[in-house]
Amino acid sequence: MRAIVKTGAGPGMEVRDVPVPAVGASDVLIKVLNAGVCGTDLHIWEWDAWAAGRLKPPLTIGHEFSGRIEKLGEDAAAEGLLKIGDLVTAEGHIICGHCLPCRTGNGHLCVRTRIIGVDRDGAFADYIAMPVSNVMLLDGIAPEIGAIMDPVGNAVHTVLEGGDVPGSTVFVLGCGPIGCFAVGVARAAGAALVVASDFNLRRLELARAMGAHETLNPGQDDVVARIKELTRGLGVDLVCEMSGHPAGHAQAFAAARPGGRVNMLGTPSRTTEVDFARDVIFKGLTLYGVTGRKMYSTWNAMARFIKSGEFDPSPVVTHRFPLEGIAQAVEVIKDGQAGKVILEIGT
Amino acid sequence: MRAIVKTGAGPGMEVRDVPVPAVGASDVLIKVLNAGVCGTDLHIWEWDAWAAGRLKPPLTIGHEFSGRIEKLGEDAAAEGLLKIGDLVTAEGHIICGHCLPCRTGNGHLCVRTRIIGVDRDGAFADYIAMPVSNVMLLDGIAPEIGAIMDPVGNAVHTVLEGGDVPGSTVFVLGCGPIGCFAVGVARAAGAALVVASDFNLRRLELARAMGAHETLNPGQDDVVARIKELTRGLGVDLVCEMSGHPAGHAQAFAAARPGGRVNMLGTPSRTTEVDFARDVIFKGLTLYGVTGRKMYSTWNAMARFIKSGEFDPSPVVTHRFPLEGIAQAVEVIKDGQAGKVILEIGT
Amino acid sequence: MRAIVKTGAGPGMEVRDVPVPAVGASDVLIKVLNAGVCGTDLHIWEWDAWAAGRLKPPLTIGHEFSGRIEKLGEDAAAEGLLKIGDLVTAEGHIICGHCLPCRTGNGHLCVRTRIIGVDRDGAFADYIAMPVSNVMLLDGIAPEIGAIMDPVGNAVHTVLEGGDVPGSTVFVLGCGPIGCFAVGVARAAGAALVVASDFNLRRLELARAMGAHETLNPGQDDVVARIKELTRGLGVDLVCEMSGHPAGHAQAFAAARPGGRVNMLGTPSRTTEVDFARDVIFKGLTLYGVTGRKMYSTWNAMARFIKSGEFDPSPVVTHRFPLEGIAQAVEVIKDGQAGKVILEIGT
Amino acid sequence: MRAIVKTGAGPGMEVRDVPVPAVGASDVLIKVLNAGVCGTDLHIWEWDAWAAGRLKPPLTIGHEFSGRIEKLGEDAAAEGLLKIGDLVTAEGHIICGHCLPCRTGNGHLCVRTRIIGVDRDGAFADYIAMPVSNVMLLDGIAPEIGAIMDPVGNAVHTVLEGGDVPGSTVFVLGCGPIGCFAVGVARAAGAALVVASDFNLRRLELARAMGAHETLNPGQDDVVARIKELTRGLGVDLVCEMSGHPAGHAQAFAAARPGGRVNMLGTPSRTTEVDFARDVIFKGLTLYGVTGRKMYSTWNAMARFIKSGEFDPSPVVTHRFPLEGIAQAVEVIKDGQAGKVILEIGT
Repeated sequence: MRAIVKTGAGPGMEVRDVPVPAVGASDVLIKVLNAGVCGTDLHIWEWDAWAAGRLKPPLTIGHEFSGRIEKLGEDAAAEGLLKIGDLVTAEGHIICGHCLPCRTGNGHLCVRTRIIGVDRDGAFADYIAMPVSNVMLLDGIAPEIGAIMDPVGNAVHTVLEGGDVPGSTVFVLGCGPIGCFAVGVARAAGAALVVASDFNLRRLELARAMGAHETLNPGQDDVVARIKELTRGLGVDLVCEMSGHPAGHAQAFAAARPGGRVNMLGTPSRTTEVDFARDVIFKGLTLYGVTGRKMYSTWNAMARFIKSGEFDPSPVVTHRFPLEGIAQAVEVIKDGQAGKVILEIGT
Repeated sequence: MRAIVKTGAGPGMEVRDVPVPAVGASDVLIKVLNAGVCGTDLHIWEWDAWAAGRLKPPLTIGHEFSGRIEKLGEDAAAEGLLKIGDLVTAEGHIICGHCLPCRTGNGHLCVRTRIIGVDRDGAFADYIAMPVSNVMLLDGIAPEIGAIMDPVGNAVHTVLEGGDVPGSTVFVLGCGPIGCFAVGVARAAGAALVVASDFNLRRLELARAMGAHETLNPGQDDVVARIKELTRGLGVDLVCEMSGHPAGHAQAFAAARPGGRVNMLGTPSRTTEVDFARDVIFKGLTLYGVTGRKMYSTWNAMARFIKSGEFDPSPVVTHRFPLEGIAQAVEVIKDGQAGKVILEIGT
Repeated sequence: MRAIVKTGAGPGMEVRDVPVPAVGASDVLIKVLNAGVCGTDLHIWEWDAWAAGRLKPPLTIGHEFSGRIEKLGEDAAAEGLLKIGDLVTAEGHIICGHCLPCRTGNGHLCVRTRIIGVDRDGAFADYIAMPVSNVMLLDGIAPEIGAIMDPVGNAVHTVLEGGDVPGSTVFVLGCGPIGCFAVGVARAAGAALVVASDFNLRRLELARAMGAHETLNPGQDDVVARIKELTRGLGVDLVCEMSGHPAGHAQAFAAARPGGRVNMLGTPSRTTEVDFARDVIFKGLTLYGVTGRKMYSTWNAMARFIKSGEFDPSPVVTHRFPLEGIAQAVEVIKDGQAGKVILEIGT
Repeated sequence: MRAIVKTGAGPGMEVRDVPVPAVGASDVLIKVLNAGVCGTDLHIWEWDAWAAGRLKPPLTIGHEFSGRIEKLGEDAAAEGLLKIGDLVTAEGHIICGHCLPCRTGNGHLCVRTRIIGVDRDGAFADYIAMPVSNVMLLDGIAPEIGAIMDPVGNAVHTVLEGGDVPGSTVFVLGCGPIGCFAVGVARAAGAALVVASDFNLRRLELARAMGAHETLNPGQDDVVARIKELTRGLGVDLVCEMSGHPAGHAQAFAAARPGGRVNMLGTPSRTTEVDFARDVIFKGLTLYGVTGRKMYSTWNAMARFIKSGEFDPSPVVTHRFPLEGIAQAVEVIKDGQAGKVILEIGT
């Protein structure tokens, strides 16, 4: 079968012919229909320090996908919940089930997580084998949307953690695809004010398309001053920090109201100088680090949001390529003009 | 000034001329513009057991209103937050500030609460004096909407308590005005499914106008069976119990999913037989009794909901009468064809 | 092997020779050392309506136990967490893992739960086979204590649900073994006042041994009046309802303070008349139905409580019998003079 | 009357004769019995950058105290809750009551807070006037303990925020008086493991006296490694960060388990470099900034803890001086050999 493979240390990926994966007793073999290209895939393409420290090539890349069930292992079949032909997506974090986080409802923080496309073969291929417990029926959700439920789930987790979004004020700092999804989720969850910021005008357009009441460009606007104006000088209830940048962190802490929250998803590549006294302690702030999706309450809320029509992530999808177009996909993302980029792999 | 007064024991009310209320140092004198007629006012009109046990006539009735500030007591003026001419509404529960509930963020459960129009003179009058701490600026909200923020706040409290409405399934049981508001609040808060039930077809129409995905008539529909169908056999995450009827309670407990919530606002006039083993313990349900509005987090969320346009209670307002039309107002409510009924008192 | 078997409809149980259970790939075979006799076992012995409606004899009884691992199925062994000779206990609720409660952190409310000793063969036997995921290492906890972690876990779940026990006031209503455990858990969790009530003087002694600051006998004391006295007229923050009796429910609701909680574990055999207006709605109460133990956060908190010495359930254990003494065990429980009764099955 | 006054810019304080404060209508005049000397008072003595930026001398210092009511303003008397001769303590944050934090249960984050002894005259004096709403009856608590309920309340706030202390593992990083109190509060709240660290051996002794299961000296011990050992490699559930030092922050983040909390009270005097990716985001940590005491739920829990005997802060009190001994008090604190230092002002 075809697969996009990181063949060794260094930049780039190759489309190769590799064997169809084996299907264990508790596994499901899925014919991949669509897959999402993620910033993580760019790090792997570029072979940055993180990638070099974590990946063991050769490895099939890709961790966001949807597909059709082609085969079920014996135990997976015995469960009776899924059958050949079902359209599905999957959580890409394979967890141990034994550690304290796993046993106390925090599987997303499993100390032995293995991520598809990072720690084991991934979804940029004609087929992928997944443990049955990670597989979710699409149940009417379009396969293209199913392919991006991993990053949409990141947004759902980031926006909803803390529990008081209805009627609240939200600042989404950074409008990459997950930031744009977060704007839509915050609107769907009844936020009374959603402000979004980014340096990239195309991304601000997408944020507005997803329902941002106001968008700000830190290159031109005094972001914190404007947010204070919009909130009677107080700051917002919730900041969704999607930039991962030290300057973003500073704005996030300054933009949150006393007693507010900063939910942090953007992954920094370096350290940030924090004035904890001024920015966290005297303000009574709560900071929360967002990893993945809660397994599986985030998926449950997300599926209902999408199926009910409350939330539609599709305006964020701007580009589609065939599997062989991975280099172009990487290019448009690096170029900064893309929202979410989809690979159309199978039908 | 004019006032609708309960003059003594027995049914009815009278429009009388009474003195303009005195304004204490911490009080604000408000010229009443609009007032809402509530089910509680009906109990007082009818002089039922509850009314007879609690009210001490003569008393000016009415606890939901909006108005314009006419005068401020010395301390109220010194605060500098309100000024003559401001359009305002007010929380009608006057609380002690000293008891444990008051001192630990539960003022709505103050053990010495005195309610305007019930325990002291109310708002069906040309003027009312209120403690400044109970007064809220309308800040652009229309006075007619300001006049019903008390019952809208009941709905906000009922829907949002428990914190997980976005993406959830909600059943509003009973579609009087507060039930209809609850439908709209649940939709605004991103509920993925909102089902509403009532025996009264006019009320079901209002519930649909407020955004109910489906309405059920317990006189014809098997309510619990239908809710199970809509939720894959599980039941809903949240029931808003607005009926106060034993039959409603039974449906509420049966319609909630294992681990779900039943937030109870409808005030029963008699006891209910509860099978706690089957309906609460084995299902892991949470029941919560809703009193008033959280002071003032409910008001804050509500004001933002209304100002942002996420939630508009106005379709529920079906009738308007002058102060002198109180008997007709009571009549249309008893008749069951009204949503919310407003008195137009001043301008 | 020996087993205590419900052989058919009607009262009683028999010690019989039955085959050692088969061990599936994901199972662990455990040589039983100690087992706890529970009120549920009494219902089964008596063959009451609940037992008759649920059990399918012949069935080995018993759901609380500890033991030593004798054999591991292939997949259980492959996990590498448990080995032959390990001392263990186990959660007796075998859950499906697929339903919404299971997938969203509420496995204790699984819609397909099967309980050992009720829905499948149990632990009053020389050996029991358990799914590896239900098995917990004793890790230094004595086997006799390990044998009662099921009911201790009920108490931990009942006391800790709601989250504010440190510094709070707690009323444990009903001092059977789980009530007595709840007293000790509330003390260990830093409750500032723990009051316990029961009609049975021997049980009140045990409650005092577990740390109750004051014990009340509803046959002689005005329970609610005394609790109001002890709490400046307010009532307690948390009632742990362990009686399952309508009169207990009434006291529980009356004894809780405005804004308080009633966590209900005692399983009623009949309905209760509830005045929701007075007792729940106007008081802003939260009622919560306690089922089993949270899987596995309750187990985690409980194990730490016991291992740290913060909480010692052993004073509640009053009687020990060999497996053949089941009739006597049932007798002392019915007699009302027992705390927790243990079967000493193996060594 | 006597008062310890900051007379102007620059180091030191003076005992001076100043007028007894005026008593407003809502105020209470309190004869001071005991007062606690706090790290904040040292900053003021030293006249560091923070003090120079905030204080406007001349000002009477001191914000932790207990005393006896000497006089009540008219409105304070009318409330009927306090009377002349009552022994009391008080919350030293005077809040506006109008801002969003004040109106939504977060008065400790009032945007217009004025602190006694910092922004207005304080308690190191024979008399202090306080708003009646800030005054709390000692109700049997010894005046010396009442004098330190401000910092004890900091510890209660730090330990209990997050809600899951019973059965949990806690690391108190920094054993000044508030750290030592935190150790005792964590033990009283049923933490299964409490580890404390400090460079100062005298402080580690106090931490052990307050119940720390283990104390660590970062000068000699590998603190994080030891904490991992004690928690099976996971880290603790809760870190109470009391050091305010960048090195402490790094240890705090490293010592918390995945999904754990770091509640930060120690006030840093400079910025900290934070690796948010490694330390917060991938670990799913929650950081929370602790300001003051929740008004008044922290006071309520604290009073009950102390009155019940669950928690006794007295071992932390190591030195007592008369009002005139302020220079010596400052000296023993700077010297690092003191726990909590008390001024004995009146009787």
